[in-house]
Amino acid sequence: MPMWHVHYPKGVYDAADRRALSTRITELYHERVKLPKFYVSVAFHEFDPEHFFVGGEPAERFVRIWIDQIARQNADPERQRRWMVMLNDWLSAFLADRGLNWEIHIDNTPTDFWTIDGYLPPPYGSEDEQRWLAENKSSELLGR
Amino acid sequence: MPMWHVHYPKGVYDAADRRALSTRITELYHERVKLPKFYVSVAFHEFDPEHFFVGGEPAERFVRIWIDQIARQNADPERQRRWMVMLNDWLSAFLADRGLNWEIHIDNTPTDFWTIDGYLPPPYGSEDEQRWLAENKSSELLGR
Amino acid sequence: MPMWHVHYPKGVYDAADRRALSTRITELYHERVKLPKFYVSVAFHEFDPEHFFVGGEPAERFVRIWIDQIARQNADPERQRRWMVMLNDWLSAFLADRGLNWEIHIDNTPTDFWTIDGYLPPPYGSEDEQRWLAENKSSELLGR
Repeated sequence: MPMWHVHYPKGVYDAADRRALSTRITELYHERVKLPKFYVSVAFHEFDPEHFFVGGEPAERFVRIWIDQIARQNADPERQRRWMVMLNDWLSAFLADRGLNWEIHIDNTPTDFWTIDGYLPPPYGSEDEQRWLAENKSSELLGR
Repeated sequence: MPMWHVHYPKGVYDAADRRALSTRITELYHERVKLPKFYVSVAFHEFDPEHFFVGGEPAERFVRIWIDQIARQNADPERQRRWMVMLNDWLSAFLADRGLNWEIHIDNTPTDFWTIDGYLPPPYGSEDEQRWLAENKSSELLGR
Repeated sequence: MPMWHVHYPKGVYDAADRRALSTRITELYHERVKLPKFYVSVAFHEFDPEHFFVGGEPAERFVRIWIDQIARQNADPERQRRWMVMLNDWLSAFLADRGLNWEIHIDNTPTDFWTIDGYLPPPYGSEDEQRWLAENKSSELLGR
């Protein structure tokens, strides 16, 4: 976690865009939240406008981003709003700057209903997490 | 928001059905909840029954609807149940009347983790929302 | 409910694997939680690694499982952690034993925002639920 689903109309993002956008999203969490990079998953779903409708109309130039993440310091509404504003700015090269319409929402999911490679991820700021961050992979937890 | 994902077996809905169903869903929120039409996104995901299982069996005649929406007046359980009953009735031409099996669930997601075109959508009933509703598109918020 | 989405790289699961994994998931809820089998939906989404990134890198050997379920006895964090440990063990033949990396998360969604075949599913342990369980299909609710 986080896990992002990016739904976009055919042709709006090519392979290089997808890679660049996933890197940009990963950097956000890595730099701002100090999460291990491998925590961040981004799935791209290309659609044909006759399979995706906004307001009942086929979506020709509309990108829809759906995110599930673990609640951390984000429970406060004001913090959530600031995060969203920052997020839209962070991704502007892929959204606003391309003359698209787009919508983003995030859901918080329970911390304890989450595993990576069978591990319950270590507590935020723990030594275990520091090691996962440095090595960019999961490993046996030492419980500290 | 709301955002609907409609998972259906190949052949159950054609292009005209998809458009009609997305229009029907949009009208629900527009007429009953007075939401701007462009708030409503509907993604159709056609599956091959060998990629979708119900109770361990390939799903030949099963439609699965997965919805994320912002909690408004819906936090009360009794209201939620009434909404679900109404919703099933509203969509009967696409579900019950076709002899399908189907399942629907809705998740409430945080109000403040949501943007459209980079804007934090205006408060329910505000002048800004009235304008978005009338114009069926986002525009600079005036904060009233 | 539960509803599982299994995102996997092309070639990692074939048709027999998908069927076996969906059966295994169904048995989990049927045997451990005594849910009717038809409550369990599993959607498989095969991806090309150039459409799915982990830490900004194409996901070659990574399976991502995303689950929405109704909260039952699972609200306690310790119970949630135990459930996750058990779940990873239960599915090891499809995950750990294949040398994959994988991530799983579950979200709890509101009990009263859920219908099957237009019915609000009967209360846990009710006679109605016992009948649905025995017959493995929905039927008119008797309210007991």
